[in-house]
Amino acid sequence: MEELFLKNAIGSWKQVIGRIDKGFLQLSDEEIQRQVAPGKNRLIYLLGHLTAVHDRMFSLLGIGERLHPELDEAYISNPDRTLPDPVAPADLKKFWSEVNRQLTEAFEKLTPAEWLQKHTAVSDEDFAKDPSRNRLSILLSRTNHAAFHTGQAVLVK
Amino acid sequence: MEELFLKNAIGSWKQVIGRIDKGFLQLSDEEIQRQVAPGKNRLIYLLGHLTAVHDRMFSLLGIGERLHPELDEAYISNPDRTLPDPVAPADLKKFWSEVNRQLTEAFEKLTPAEWLQKHTAVSDEDFAKDPSRNRLSILLSRTNHAAFHTGQAVLVK
Repeated sequence: MEELFLKNAIGSWKQVIGRIDKGFLQLSDEEIQRQVAPGKNRLIYLLGHLTAVHDRMFSLLGIGERLHPELDEAYISNPDRTLPDPVAPADLKKFWSEVNRQLTEAFEKLTPAEWLQKHTAVSDEDFAKDPSRNRLSILLSRTNHAAFHTGQAVLVK
Repeated sequence: MEELFLKNAIGSWKQVIGRIDKGFLQLSDEEIQRQVAPGKNRLIYLLGHLTAVHDRMFSLLGIGERLHPELDEAYISNPDRTLPDPVAPADLKKFWSEVNRQLTEAFEKLTPAEWLQKHTAVSDEDFAKDPSRNRLSILLSRTNHAAFHTGQAVLVK
């Protein structure tokens, strides 16, 4: 029964990632510079932001070393158009795909019991009080976060 | 173990709903008429759409009768500004809260095994081929859907 719960949760993650792949990976270097609405984030900022946030999941879940810490300054610590984009659009797309591919492989290796273990940003004390602060909660909240920004990206159409 | 998986999934739903409550329920009748970006959906359309889509979950999950089928024509079958809003903003806010309150109560009564039963829009044959087409998949996809539109609504700020 736990395996099926996990299949659903990872399936939900894959569905949201697949939608972003479809929307972003075929964009030209010009198209990816567009803002989702006047004065709002550019598409490349959203892709950089999502890549950096997902890359941080490796350490947050304790499943490996992150791949691209060089994205944080431009795409997490600062708002859009504060710093120059640290990498070319084609490279960012590769980073996005690689981060999610490796994450998803790692997700599929975790057992149900491992998904219910604490993530690395919660203390032993807090986790003892609230065992829902586990790895699974991170997967679900990051899936929602990606869906949230996808809703913005589609406004460009 | 299954109970904790469910607690996480329902917790993720509650978190997204709570964020929408916070953003929409205090809007004035004028504010809720604003478009999320020039030419895009109005906030009241998004709230009507989410209320109608969630209201449909009662029958989709087989957990009761829906409360407000009168919203579908304006907020699901047609794009924004095609039909007049069928109810006043204050009533729509009440409908939104009532639908989600009743849904969440019903969610909390379902057992883990019941969450893994098929939803009503999949045939027995298709469900036999793919048991992940269960009630839980609907909860996760509707949570993502609500997060998707939340990402659009916050652009108004």
